[in-house]
Amino acid sequence: MANFGLSDFRLVDPYDEAFREAVSAVGGAHVLKSARVFATVADAVADCTLVVGTTAGQNRVPQQPVERIEAGMTLARGHAGRTAFLFGSEKFGLSNDDLSHCHLLIRIPTAPNTPSMNLGQAVAVCLYEWVRRDSEPLARAIEPVSGADAEHLTLMLLDVLRQSGYTNRITAVSTEEKVRRWVRRLQIGRRDAPLLLGILRQILWKFSAKD
Amino acid sequence: MANFGLSDFRLVDPYDEAFREAVSAVGGAHVLKSARVFATVADAVADCTLVVGTTAGQNRVPQQPVERIEAGMTLARGHAGRTAFLFGSEKFGLSNDDLSHCHLLIRIPTAPNTPSMNLGQAVAVCLYEWVRRDSEPLARAIEPVSGADAEHLTLMLLDVLRQSGYTNRITAVSTEEKVRRWVRRLQIGRRDAPLLLGILRQILWKFSAKD
Repeated sequence: MANFGLSDFRLVDPYDEAFREAVSAVGGAHVLKSARVFATVADAVADCTLVVGTTAGQNRVPQQPVERIEAGMTLARGHAGRTAFLFGSEKFGLSNDDLSHCHLLIRIPTAPNTPSMNLGQAVAVCLYEWVRRDSEPLARAIEPVSGADAEHLTLMLLDVLRQSGYTNRITAVSTEEKVRRWVRRLQIGRRDAPLLLGILRQILWKFSAKD
Repeated sequence: MANFGLSDFRLVDPYDEAFREAVSAVGGAHVLKSARVFATVADAVADCTLVVGTTAGQNRVPQQPVERIEAGMTLARGHAGRTAFLFGSEKFGLSNDDLSHCHLLIRIPTAPNTPSMNLGQAVAVCLYEWVRRDSEPLARAIEPVSGADAEHLTLMLLDVLRQSGYTNRITAVSTEEKVRRWVRRLQIGRRDAPLLLGILRQILWKFSAKD
C-alpha cells in the first residue's frame, strides 16, 4: 500500500491485533499504525461509494459479473467517490456475504492451473494496476551522435580496418558502405562518440608505434 | 511466476540450494524444482537476446535509460527473441556489474518516499504487467544478437582495449562495466556479430603480429 501511495488500511474482524507490529517495508509503518479495525464489512465500507471485490481467476463465479483487473480498474478509476478494494483472507478469499457488498468484482489474469495468488502479491498487483498509466512516453531517448561525428567515426574505423589488413582493394568499396551504414544504424549516443573515437585513436597509435 | 504462466526460473549464485524446498503456492512447485543455477549473470542470460533489469524507483540512475514498467514492458513484448527479467537480491538490488548486462532497465512507479518493494511483490507486478493486455506490441525490430555473442564481443573488445593500452589497472573495472553496458545498448543485430567479431579478431591479430 505504501509503495503505491495508499494509506487508508481497514481490517475487518482480524484474528488478532498483532498485525500492527508486523515487520513492514521501510516507509510502510505508518500504514499499519494508522490502520482501523471494523467488526463487519458493512461498517468498513460505510463511507465508500464503490466497493471493488477481488477473486481468484477460477473461482465459482457468484451472481455478479467478474471483470479482468485491467477493465475493472478502468471502471474504478472513472468513479468520482471514495473507492474500497476488498481482499479476502489468504486461505479462503472473500465469502459470499463479503462479495454481496461489492459493486464490482475483479480478477487478476492468472494461469488456469495456478489461479490462487499470495495475498500480498495480489494486493501489490491490484494497487499497481490502480496507479499504472497507459500512454506513458518513453524516457528521453539517447541524444544521438551528429552526422559529422558519425562520419568521423566511420573514417577512423575504416582506417583501422585498412591498417589491420581487414579490408583489401577488392572489398574496400563495399566494406566502406557497409561500415558507414552500420555506424548510422547503431544507436551511438552523442556522449559515446568521444569514448569510441578515443578507442580507435588508441588502436591506430598502437599500430603505428610498432612500425 | 507460476501464477503468470512462466516457468524458466534461473538463479545466479544463490546463497544455498535450500530454495528448492521453499514453501510455494499450490501449482508452483514445478518452477522451483526445475530452476537452474548459474555462476554468473553472463552464463544465465547467454541464450537470451533481451535482458531487462529492474531497479527501485529512486535508485541512483546508472548510465542507462530507466523506463517506467508500462513502457518498458511494451518494448519487451515487441521483442522477437528470448527475454530475461533480472531481479537483484531483496536487500541490495542489482549491482552495477549486473546492470551492465541489461539492454533495458525498468522501474515500478512506486511512491517517492517508499520506493523499495518486497522482492516477491515486485516480481508479481512485473510479470503481471508482462501478461496484461491492451498494449500494442511495437513493430518487429532487427533480430538481435544473443547474450552469448554480446558477451563474446564484450570480452574481445576489452582485450583490444587492454592490448592497445586504452585501459589501465585503475580504470579496468569501470571500463569493463561501461563497455558491457554499451555493447548491450547498441542495437547490434544477430547478423552484425560475425562482422564485428571479425574486425576485433583482425585488430588483435595485427597487435600480436608485431610483437
